[in-house]
Amino acid sequence: VKVSELGEFGLIELLSRILGETKPSGSQLILGIGDDAAAWNENHYITLATTDTMVQGVHFTLENATWRELGWKILAINLSDIAAMGGLPLYGLVSLALPAETEVRSVTQLYEGMVEIARQFSLEIVGGNISEAPSVVLTASVVGRGNAPLLTRSAAIPGEMIAVTGYLGSAAAGLDVLTHQLQLNDKSVSFLREVYLRPRPRLAEGQTLLKWGVRSAIDISDGLFQDLGHLCKMSGVGATVRIDDLPIHPIVRDGFRDSCLDLALSGGEDYELLFTANDESIADIRSEMECPVTVVGEITGDKSGHITLLDKKGKAVVQGHNKGWEHFSKARSDTKAR
Amino acid sequence: VKVSELGEFGLIELLSRILGETKPSGSQLILGIGDDAAAWNENHYITLATTDTMVQGVHFTLENATWRELGWKILAINLSDIAAMGGLPLYGLVSLALPAETEVRSVTQLYEGMVEIARQFSLEIVGGNISEAPSVVLTASVVGRGNAPLLTRSAAIPGEMIAVTGYLGSAAAGLDVLTHQLQLNDKSVSFLREVYLRPRPRLAEGQTLLKWGVRSAIDISDGLFQDLGHLCKMSGVGATVRIDDLPIHPIVRDGFRDSCLDLALSGGEDYELLFTANDESIADIRSEMECPVTVVGEITGDKSGHITLLDKKGKAVVQGHNKGWEHFSKARSDTKAR
Repeated sequence: VKVSELGEFGLIELLSRILGETKPSGSQLILGIGDDAAAWNENHYITLATTDTMVQGVHFTLENATWRELGWKILAINLSDIAAMGGLPLYGLVSLALPAETEVRSVTQLYEGMVEIARQFSLEIVGGNISEAPSVVLTASVVGRGNAPLLTRSAAIPGEMIAVTGYLGSAAAGLDVLTHQLQLNDKSVSFLREVYLRPRPRLAEGQTLLKWGVRSAIDISDGLFQDLGHLCKMSGVGATVRIDDLPIHPIVRDGFRDSCLDLALSGGEDYELLFTANDESIADIRSEMECPVTVVGEITGDKSGHITLLDKKGKAVVQGHNKGWEHFSKARSDTKAR
Repeated sequence: VKVSELGEFGLIELLSRILGETKPSGSQLILGIGDDAAAWNENHYITLATTDTMVQGVHFTLENATWRELGWKILAINLSDIAAMGGLPLYGLVSLALPAETEVRSVTQLYEGMVEIARQFSLEIVGGNISEAPSVVLTASVVGRGNAPLLTRSAAIPGEMIAVTGYLGSAAAGLDVLTHQLQLNDKSVSFLREVYLRPRPRLAEGQTLLKWGVRSAIDISDGLFQDLGHLCKMSGVGATVRIDDLPIHPIVRDGFRDSCLDLALSGGEDYELLFTANDESIADIRSEMECPVTVVGEITGDKSGHITLLDKKGKAVVQGHNKGWEHFSKARSDTKAR
């Protein structure tokens, strides 16, 4: 059996079973494989740790992204995991694999992008590793800090509303624009490029969610449909999503009339936060956050983790492509280098 | 300028200057880029963090190594960094990039190798990441714990003896045997393969060093000559090394008569500990450690960090190839896939 047949999430499940056998006595682990970040108890707080990788030709191409943007993004996607736990970042490690013919200037720009985001979000880059490789592979690990209760994927409760920060589908639209050189006006292209290549981790927003009593959240890296699915599965609940309520930016709505719904549902890489809460909390949260906060559906008691998409009239609809991003999935062979 | 011209260590120096600009207020960092692991203060102890990567075709080939051996080794080389600080490991993250056509069974074996070493050294694997990639790239990050004073690269003092644990050059001999299918007897091949692919991190030995008052150590990943050079540079000292005193295993001495000295000086990947101490401490350490402990030279007051190699008669000698392993270095193009 090839990993392409099992898929990324099947593989993670298999491996978490094998790796679950390593718990030493005295372990202070609270959350291991399966949430946005690992979490363990220190004396007076919780340490969070996460890692993420970007591979040339799979996650990016050097034609579509500048080195500086890549430096920003490899840290942004890790910081987003810390945000989704309600934590704040402290220290980062960077592992860089790159061809010997890479220009030193390119690597300098890569690190300048890292320094830029590190400064904005108070991350200190404290170490790393550089190796030769046939193509570019960027890996970062971020250690952060949180306090109990954390935001987790496993705390959603039937009856809660499902809300998201910001807009959905913009990053995937940005990838589409860069990959296919779509003809949009300069302002739109620049907006979409920024969203796709320089996502802003929702760290302050994660803090606001905690403040207003939110317990369950996930960052949307693989698309709303898939990430909500992870959250439902971990919480043992189901969900309904009203597709007409999905927050789609006007630029995406105008530029991608036929596909914007698919992009919003399963485009991925938005790095927005999806969370569950009651109406009252959401009103408080909305009044405090600078970004849009949109209710897109509701948590149900369906223990199978099923997500039902509803149209304007409340009728169940089936989307053609609602799987979201999954590594090794054959379905995504048409979207290279996202 | 290409990174191949600047070399791995020139690149690390350049980047540590750029990344040094990220220190936020309230940082508890003790050691950043430049030692075996980063270190920062927690309330009652020091947290250590390190990351290391192995790239297919550069650090290994799937012809020469089993997946299980690779799983062991990617964690072993990270644990070795924790050992070199006098720390003990706690939690590990694993980032795995691999082709879609990889067999699930291979990945299972990879993780079984990780579980094996994790259990032996009380490491808990708590998270990670799996991505598609054109070739295999394995990255692990390990978080550990230490107490002040740590073992560092910057604490060597003129007049101290330089000692190493175990044997030098065996791992490089192992690589040579696997790469060139050298004709040695089965016992020798199996010994050398084991040393090269399943190095044992010197964690207990690091604890023993601390117990007997050692302050300066480094793990030998790039070869004695290069790693001693890093230690000298960070400590602002020089060194003499008596090449006839280098501990070379009889199997390596017999099988590699012409090259064993070069292998011991600059073969790399031994993952032994090099440390500095006075005679008395070394005697105590030797009596307590199960592995050989060999004095190979002396720290000098030469502030340029120069290392002088001495022959049996105390005469300075120049070795042909004493650079050690460096990524992007042109000198090493003859030793692919180590």
